[in-house]
Amino acid sequence: MLTVDLNSDLGESFGHYTIGNDEKLLPLITSANIACGFHAGDPQVMAKTVAIAEKNGVQIGAHPGYPDLNGFGRRYLAMAPRDVSNIITYQVAALDGFTSGHHLHHVKPHGALYNAAGKDYELALAICKGIQRVDPQLPIYGLAGSNLIKAANEVGLPARSEAFADRAYQADGSLVPRSQAGAVLTDPAEVAQRAVSMINEQAVTAITGETVPLKVDSLCVHGDNEAALLIVKQLRKTLTKNGIELAAC
Amino acid sequence: MLTVDLNSDLGESFGHYTIGNDEKLLPLITSANIACGFHAGDPQVMAKTVAIAEKNGVQIGAHPGYPDLNGFGRRYLAMAPRDVSNIITYQVAALDGFTSGHHLHHVKPHGALYNAAGKDYELALAICKGIQRVDPQLPIYGLAGSNLIKAANEVGLPARSEAFADRAYQADGSLVPRSQAGAVLTDPAEVAQRAVSMINEQAVTAITGETVPLKVDSLCVHGDNEAALLIVKQLRKTLTKNGIELAAC
Amino acid sequence: MLTVDLNSDLGESFGHYTIGNDEKLLPLITSANIACGFHAGDPQVMAKTVAIAEKNGVQIGAHPGYPDLNGFGRRYLAMAPRDVSNIITYQVAALDGFTSGHHLHHVKPHGALYNAAGKDYELALAICKGIQRVDPQLPIYGLAGSNLIKAANEVGLPARSEAFADRAYQADGSLVPRSQAGAVLTDPAEVAQRAVSMINEQAVTAITGETVPLKVDSLCVHGDNEAALLIVKQLRKTLTKNGIELAAC
Amino acid sequence: MLTVDLNSDLGESFGHYTIGNDEKLLPLITSANIACGFHAGDPQVMAKTVAIAEKNGVQIGAHPGYPDLNGFGRRYLAMAPRDVSNIITYQVAALDGFTSGHHLHHVKPHGALYNAAGKDYELALAICKGIQRVDPQLPIYGLAGSNLIKAANEVGLPARSEAFADRAYQADGSLVPRSQAGAVLTDPAEVAQRAVSMINEQAVTAITGETVPLKVDSLCVHGDNEAALLIVKQLRKTLTKNGIELAAC
Repeated sequence: MLTVDLNSDLGESFGHYTIGNDEKLLPLITSANIACGFHAGDPQVMAKTVAIAEKNGVQIGAHPGYPDLNGFGRRYLAMAPRDVSNIITYQVAALDGFTSGHHLHHVKPHGALYNAAGKDYELALAICKGIQRVDPQLPIYGLAGSNLIKAANEVGLPARSEAFADRAYQADGSLVPRSQAGAVLTDPAEVAQRAVSMINEQAVTAITGETVPLKVDSLCVHGDNEAALLIVKQLRKTLTKNGIELAAC
Repeated sequence: MLTVDLNSDLGESFGHYTIGNDEKLLPLITSANIACGFHAGDPQVMAKTVAIAEKNGVQIGAHPGYPDLNGFGRRYLAMAPRDVSNIITYQVAALDGFTSGHHLHHVKPHGALYNAAGKDYELALAICKGIQRVDPQLPIYGLAGSNLIKAANEVGLPARSEAFADRAYQADGSLVPRSQAGAVLTDPAEVAQRAVSMINEQAVTAITGETVPLKVDSLCVHGDNEAALLIVKQLRKTLTKNGIELAAC
Repeated sequence: MLTVDLNSDLGESFGHYTIGNDEKLLPLITSANIACGFHAGDPQVMAKTVAIAEKNGVQIGAHPGYPDLNGFGRRYLAMAPRDVSNIITYQVAALDGFTSGHHLHHVKPHGALYNAAGKDYELALAICKGIQRVDPQLPIYGLAGSNLIKAANEVGLPARSEAFADRAYQADGSLVPRSQAGAVLTDPAEVAQRAVSMINEQAVTAITGETVPLKVDSLCVHGDNEAALLIVKQLRKTLTKNGIELAAC
Repeated sequence: MLTVDLNSDLGESFGHYTIGNDEKLLPLITSANIACGFHAGDPQVMAKTVAIAEKNGVQIGAHPGYPDLNGFGRRYLAMAPRDVSNIITYQVAALDGFTSGHHLHHVKPHGALYNAAGKDYELALAICKGIQRVDPQLPIYGLAGSNLIKAANEVGLPARSEAFADRAYQADGSLVPRSQAGAVLTDPAEVAQRAVSMINEQAVTAITGETVPLKVDSLCVHGDNEAALLIVKQLRKTLTKNGIELAAC
């Protein structure tokens, strides 16, 4: 039986500032990427988010980012790879401290760091080594086919390939930038059908028509608003109807 | 044979800012309290300091503080005990991530947090619970006789009592405030002799003449300057000469 | 003709985090206290908030707080008065830079700093001196009768007394703590009538029955939610109907 | 009579962390670039540094940088130009608040921001507009011939061209990167003679032999250590001997 993981970013509130729909989204996903206090989140939010994830039986991943709360970790910062390695260790270990029995499930780099490491192999290696210092066998989530996956394979870190059912792909397996027309799909039925096809074929049709092989261990979903939640609900229904099991990878 | 631990605060540099004599002090102590990035230190400094402590065979403790880099953690901040518990978990776990095989030896709260918890039992309890979330048996260092020791005993967290050979004591076992005359001793021979007496008697003579019982598992020493380093060297020599072994507790 | 100012805290968003109803509240008030980046706000939010305040013809005040974004400036921090003086100068001057022609109208300390200075005369003096370094005649808003008003009078800084129509008062002129029953009034009609009475009598009836003299230059209002906005709307209507003009003081 | 300004970066300490030789360097320079709390400095350090600069009769400039204390502002951060404009206004205005009578003399962007703006015209424009919001006629210091100078000319902001007597130049007027051999000159006599030549000729000989025209309003000097201070002392002596007056531009 085919299975797929549904992962989503959570725990991005900070102090008196609230963001996201964590409580509504958690029952719909199988693994959570929880912010670690650098680009979002704080120790209170981390404690609370880990607790509700555990209560919902959702696997807990660390979601480390650049030290840039004001930019929400979405701005590239020219850190030396060695320094990136250290901020990864720091954030991953910090989140692990909040889990009951240190049962962290995975690590998924956030935002600009995720994107930069996807293109920069040295940076991807640094991230993998930063994770391994905490746990040599703690899986990393990365864009299917990216340098994060390649670097993980190189150093012997388990890797999980994630795909985006609501995003258009280019022929080289990268995502069509949001600035281009057709980059984002918003029709729940279309997104759900696309997900089924991606999982069954382990491939996606690029915006330019080519068939691009694509390993799909996990689908990344969002819960920013009611429209996003609708997409996740439709996705769950369609996947299940097509005999695809939802389970953390 | 009597033994005593010599502990000191290390890893307090930050980014391009350097503070302390870590490399000179490490060969002279048996356990290090390493800053965790809130009041001092950063992931780079933590990685480096853990590495040189391990190289010197010095036991590694976490030294968590208030989130106040500008005040170096020396200013009281009115955080709710529950929030303090969370920042303790966060910082202790983060530092643990840098140790080889997660072999953290102890936790010693820093500065204003150490002082506030010594007086406030609820705060002390919160700190102990924050540590236990990371490791139920990770020892805490606290001022002998303070609420930190009492709270640890209450929740079943191992506690180590520390004393200050270079500070005058009051009849209730608290330190004479630095603002008072005679609060700090600076003569290396006098400090060393006082340490021997404290350890042999497990008591200290208060500035007002009373004998105050004092459990001494560890002595806190400083390495801020050459004078401070001289005191530590004299201390080591005198303790050894008096048959007291130096070892982490 | 009697006049009163309606002031409110604005510009408390930060980066991707949004808080408050600034756009709905601005047309209802006469002066705005804008956060300056220490407890809330950031340069982008400050630029935007100043622009919409100017567009609405609302007077602009600086709202400096403790350097504690995670605690929203609501936690006491034991800063030396001299250091507080410096963070006041910094924040007030920074906000002034965003106003067209440097026309800052007033300064109102925020949260825990406002409360601490109300009780601590040295701290209140430090705040006043920090303001005077930017502009010797820039008015400060403080709780009527508090140390902020007394310190301002002492150093020759113009002072404006603010009152809270939705809060119960104690016999000494201080506010009944929110933790006590009856501390906060929520009925719009009652709050509005109370405001009229406060302004006409320049006095308030304490929760224990005494008449307490109260200088009322400005009323502090909130816009956190629809209920709060309703109170402000009722207040405006009732004040106007009673011949009290709304204008910045 | 020819004149030249000697400028240097100061006020880069932070909290308990001390950096630089401000007190030794101030008597040797004519204008100071003072950090504004984002990449270095804090309100206490700013107040103190402004005071000693004023006491020494040294002109005061703002030295704004990226919000990156841990990286000392030396790491590129992908901020939108509009956001950069706002952090410039914020920092410049904040420092201005500490000067007696708001007599800020100039603004010089710091580190990675200075370098990025030198190459990116949109960023340079944003910086100039951020300065103009505080004061339309407050001069900017930029690398001679760079986009900072071009953007300032475009928007009508006064511009001062600075040169580096201790750095090798490329044929296009840019500095030879520090990573290349011969990039930095360390002999005091050679640096001083080179400065005289730069000022007399308003040109420099590139490392590849070409004569590069170079407007020299100000020379940037450093005071990091005794060797750096020696260079400044020799520079002052040689410039004066060659009839070049030292004065802020």
